[in-house]
Amino acid sequence: MDEKDIRILTAIARDGTASPDEIENATGIPKSTVHYRLNQLREAGVIENDLYDINLEKVGLSITLISEIWAEFGEGYHDTVGEKLAAVEGVNQVYFTMGDTDFVVIAHLANREMVETLVEDYESIDEIERTSSKFVITTVKDEQNPLNDFDVETLVTALAD
Amino acid sequence: MDEKDIRILTAIARDGTASPDEIENATGIPKSTVHYRLNQLREAGVIENDLYDINLEKVGLSITLISEIWAEFGEGYHDTVGEKLAAVEGVNQVYFTMGDTDFVVIAHLANREMVETLVEDYESIDEIERTSSKFVITTVKDEQNPLNDFDVETLVTALAD
Amino acid sequence: MDEKDIRILTAIARDGTASPDEIENATGIPKSTVHYRLNQLREAGVIENDLYDINLEKVGLSITLISEIWAEFGEGYHDTVGEKLAAVEGVNQVYFTMGDTDFVVIAHLANREMVETLVEDYESIDEIERTSSKFVITTVKDEQNPLNDFDVETLVTALAD
Amino acid sequence: MDEKDIRILTAIARDGTASPDEIENATGIPKSTVHYRLNQLREAGVIENDLYDINLEKVGLSITLISEIWAEFGEGYHDTVGEKLAAVEGVNQVYFTMGDTDFVVIAHLANREMVETLVEDYESIDEIERTSSKFVITTVKDEQNPLNDFDVETLVTALAD
Amino acid sequence: MDEKDIRILTAIARDGTASPDEIENATGIPKSTVHYRLNQLREAGVIENDLYDINLEKVGLSITLISEIWAEFGEGYHDTVGEKLAAVEGVNQVYFTMGDTDFVVIAHLANREMVETLVEDYESIDEIERTSSKFVITTVKDEQNPLNDFDVETLVTALAD
Amino acid sequence: MDEKDIRILTAIARDGTASPDEIENATGIPKSTVHYRLNQLREAGVIENDLYDINLEKVGLSITLISEIWAEFGEGYHDTVGEKLAAVEGVNQVYFTMGDTDFVVIAHLANREMVETLVEDYESIDEIERTSSKFVITTVKDEQNPLNDFDVETLVTALAD
Amino acid sequence: MDEKDIRILTAIARDGTASPDEIENATGIPKSTVHYRLNQLREAGVIENDLYDINLEKVGLSITLISEIWAEFGEGYHDTVGEKLAAVEGVNQVYFTMGDTDFVVIAHLANREMVETLVEDYESIDEIERTSSKFVITTVKDEQNPLNDFDVETLVTALAD
Amino acid sequence: MDEKDIRILTAIARDGTASPDEIENATGIPKSTVHYRLNQLREAGVIENDLYDINLEKVGLSITLISEIWAEFGEGYHDTVGEKLAAVEGVNQVYFTMGDTDFVVIAHLANREMVETLVEDYESIDEIERTSSKFVITTVKDEQNPLNDFDVETLVTALAD
Repeated sequence: MDEKDIRILTAIARDGTASPDEIENATGIPKSTVHYRLNQLREAGVIENDLYDINLEKVGLSITLISEIWAEFGEGYHDTVGEKLAAVEGVNQVYFTMGDTDFVVIAHLANREMVETLVEDYESIDEIERTSSKFVITTVKDEQNPLNDFDVETLVTALAD
Repeated sequence: MDEKDIRILTAIARDGTASPDEIENATGIPKSTVHYRLNQLREAGVIENDLYDINLEKVGLSITLISEIWAEFGEGYHDTVGEKLAAVEGVNQVYFTMGDTDFVVIAHLANREMVETLVEDYESIDEIERTSSKFVITTVKDEQNPLNDFDVETLVTALAD
Repeated sequence: MDEKDIRILTAIARDGTASPDEIENATGIPKSTVHYRLNQLREAGVIENDLYDINLEKVGLSITLISEIWAEFGEGYHDTVGEKLAAVEGVNQVYFTMGDTDFVVIAHLANREMVETLVEDYESIDEIERTSSKFVITTVKDEQNPLNDFDVETLVTALAD
Repeated sequence: MDEKDIRILTAIARDGTASPDEIENATGIPKSTVHYRLNQLREAGVIENDLYDINLEKVGLSITLISEIWAEFGEGYHDTVGEKLAAVEGVNQVYFTMGDTDFVVIAHLANREMVETLVEDYESIDEIERTSSKFVITTVKDEQNPLNDFDVETLVTALAD
Repeated sequence: MDEKDIRILTAIARDGTASPDEIENATGIPKSTVHYRLNQLREAGVIENDLYDINLEKVGLSITLISEIWAEFGEGYHDTVGEKLAAVEGVNQVYFTMGDTDFVVIAHLANREMVETLVEDYESIDEIERTSSKFVITTVKDEQNPLNDFDVETLVTALAD
Repeated sequence: MDEKDIRILTAIARDGTASPDEIENATGIPKSTVHYRLNQLREAGVIENDLYDINLEKVGLSITLISEIWAEFGEGYHDTVGEKLAAVEGVNQVYFTMGDTDFVVIAHLANREMVETLVEDYESIDEIERTSSKFVITTVKDEQNPLNDFDVETLVTALAD
Repeated sequence: MDEKDIRILTAIARDGTASPDEIENATGIPKSTVHYRLNQLREAGVIENDLYDINLEKVGLSITLISEIWAEFGEGYHDTVGEKLAAVEGVNQVYFTMGDTDFVVIAHLANREMVETLVEDYESIDEIERTSSKFVITTVKDEQNPLNDFDVETLVTALAD
Repeated sequence: MDEKDIRILTAIARDGTASPDEIENATGIPKSTVHYRLNQLREAGVIENDLYDINLEKVGLSITLISEIWAEFGEGYHDTVGEKLAAVEGVNQVYFTMGDTDFVVIAHLANREMVETLVEDYESIDEIERTSSKFVITTVKDEQNPLNDFDVETLVTALAD
């Protein structure tokens, strides 16, 4: 993958569309090039289906961290701290929970420098009092569409009016 | 949402495509109906963009649980147990971690009965010794495409060859 | 259950009596209506016996949370914080304990919005430093009269002078 | 309080009624005596209102324990263990929870011998692997009717159809 | 035991002697009375041997608490806090430890009011940040002379020059 | 201290008396020697008062360990395990507690070999599942007579009939 | 670094000597080559001084893990398990401790595959019940000669006879 | 070992060389004496090989402590606190980790007074909020050269370009 590939993939992610025209608009890369590159990325398995789902391992974001975050308790703190966490680069999911942790955060990163940057970004958020991060050895499952987590009949029973 | 909507959304998730032809093949619902329904779902915000990302809250999977799972330690146990966890209905992400928990599992569910079923599904996996689940009060962030977690320049620096 | 039912049930709870006269005084609902409604509530199982015990599930308070609360340690803090916790809506039991938690609090709530309000109410109590709440999956037993927890002979032995 | 008082109070608890006739039937104590004793118990504050709510401290059950219980994980274990816990004398509430404890149990007891008996009763339940009990120093609140935990308007909003 | 007994026992503890003359000096109780009372206390098992060891249960100090205490970390804090803990009434042993607790404290008390007083005494020590107390169900062993914890040959090997 | 000193001190501890006659009987050391040695030990501060209390540091038992012990849960286990713990050399106090530890054990030892022996003695008790020991840095207080932990007036109020 | 460099460095480590003759004997690499390579490694900072201390980062072992290990409690288990841990490739230090962990293990590894291998090696040791590993972000200090941890005067005072 | 031995060993550690000339320069001890002493230390096993590795037990640093350290969270705190920890006498390794502890520190000490000094040194670092130290019972492995932790073929595979 080179810079062009990354700009194309990012444009798809930003705009929620894979239309070559829009990608050309967003990146300045001619749409014929866009078309050619997308085919290559698809063949390499970086892009996984018609919906342009990303293969994390292949795109190079091969490190996953699960962090527990405790913040200074106070009125409305879960909103303000939650937003600051969500804005940290690499942070993919932020959950405010009812158990003995305030936030559970999942981040995908490319290398060790990014791990150190993430830790420093957490340190720079004033309200945070403590963090504890687990390194993921194996991602057994990370399904992009939650509907795939169910048998279709279960969904019909649970969700249909 | 009625049964037809759910079957259409599930077909998209299964096949990784939103082509009306393929959806008709998979569901038996005429493609004109498919087309009409998809527009309605898009307007209602259930489908979020051209890539057919799902809005969890709107689709009715409004309960999120983060579970820590400890299993009986033994050779190769993280593969066998990991696969059994991945097969439980509602389980969206399964991580085998290096810290003091074996697995961290994230599930999206529609209602309280599904919570009880999930707990019973965990109980029926022999190797599991203990589980501890946190109820998510607020999902601050759950970004479907991890590339959106970064500034594009950061990605270029980290990922380009 | 409609508003009248709720006002009647609340009046019984407030005044510790089920006299239709007193309920009419407290609510302004004519005692004949009170009489009729109470019979209906008894038949529906909302009221459980002659002593007007409430069925939590049927009255709609179907969510139970058990919270551990840690407060800033200081002279007399367990009185002041205890009272503030007792005043939070939905809080049913507050115990100041000798173990590694300051307070154990049990609350019954009707829905998810009330869970968020409860968490915010805790956040607004200055002295509180941390809370950790467990979601109850099944209430196996919640006996309103503790004498029913014993064989009568055990009580005679233990309590009679 | 003597044995007669205790038998009368227990009959009320068992049958959910304070009718002197029924109490005479259940206990063999003449209803005139029942009547007289109930007045005395009410004056002493053992009985608290027309609904015959019990004052735990005055009835002599002045020790409260909150126990966390971990049981051997297995299919359906939460039902079988839950029922065994509910059957232990003195146990008033049994909750099966989603957090890092299987059960939270609250018991009211009269004296130290009963504490030892309770611990031995837990030990004799095969599936139990560990217990940890907290001694309650002060019961700040233990409201018998959960409707009293709310402002009436909150209940109307939350519960009325 | 009446007040005289307690004053005599306390004088023995204070002065490290059981001489009737010294006890008369310390308490004003005539030595003939002292002599007579000591015999009675010995027969009742309150005093256990010629060295006047005390039977805790018989003297009425039947409640034992083991507390873990965390204090504000700072230069020399273990001396100042240790002394304050040692001065709390009922506190019998104070250990400053190397593990995850600052102090382990053992106290013997007579009744529940004294438990509450102890907790309040801890609360009034500024540097203390948290306490966690365990209630002792059974004291399996509490040997007053540590030499009795060994076989004499072990002691000769370990301690003789 | 030599072997004779240790045998004399141990005889006092065993028999609960300091009578030179009884010590001669127990040890075979002539009572004139006993008399002379006791004076020397008193001057050296090994013996602390007329009641022959021992100074742990001076007698050479300068290491104190506080161990938490978890045993296999089962009917009556706290009796059998408690007795086995009490029989381990060096173990001075054994408490069966209500909190998240089964036993708290305090031991006084002379040197590092004895620490290893103690750990091995714990390992050889079948029912024990886990131990965690804290090394005591400073013994702030270890009062041999618990009556010295109180003001005499507090004792009179709490203990006198 | 190529294979020759690694064989030379390993020979030094194995034999505790940097004599070119012995290295030639051990590796079959001519001593002139050995001499030349050692100079290059010293210039690159892989070898740090005349004592041939290794720079972990430069030699490529840039990942450090600190693992806590709990094993099945039993007679002599700390010897057998300790030796098995010491034999795992990459394990540099193994400590059997007195606190709430059985073993603390430090390992240096080169890449993520080696992390997975290490975890699998732990899993294959029967007596191990649980492990918890921390990823080291920064090694602030790792002094190869412990005498460098002290002022020389401190050492003279503490160690000289 | 006397003072001269210690000064010679320290000079070797400081300068990373065992050249008698340099040791004479650093210590003022004539190089013939240096030569003679080194032979003696080698025979006694204090020095272990041609690379002058130190035997911790024989040099008298027989106590090992593993400490977990939590510091006040804040921007850049891991650098400043890490350096302060590294400067404490006796501290041999300092790791800043990703898990629920900030720092893991390993120290080698000669006696109990040095343990107390270490604890006081930690107390005097302002940013430190809590420490928990484990006493090492047995050092199963402490390999000075990490290359010895691997089979040479493993190293070739992992490290060779």
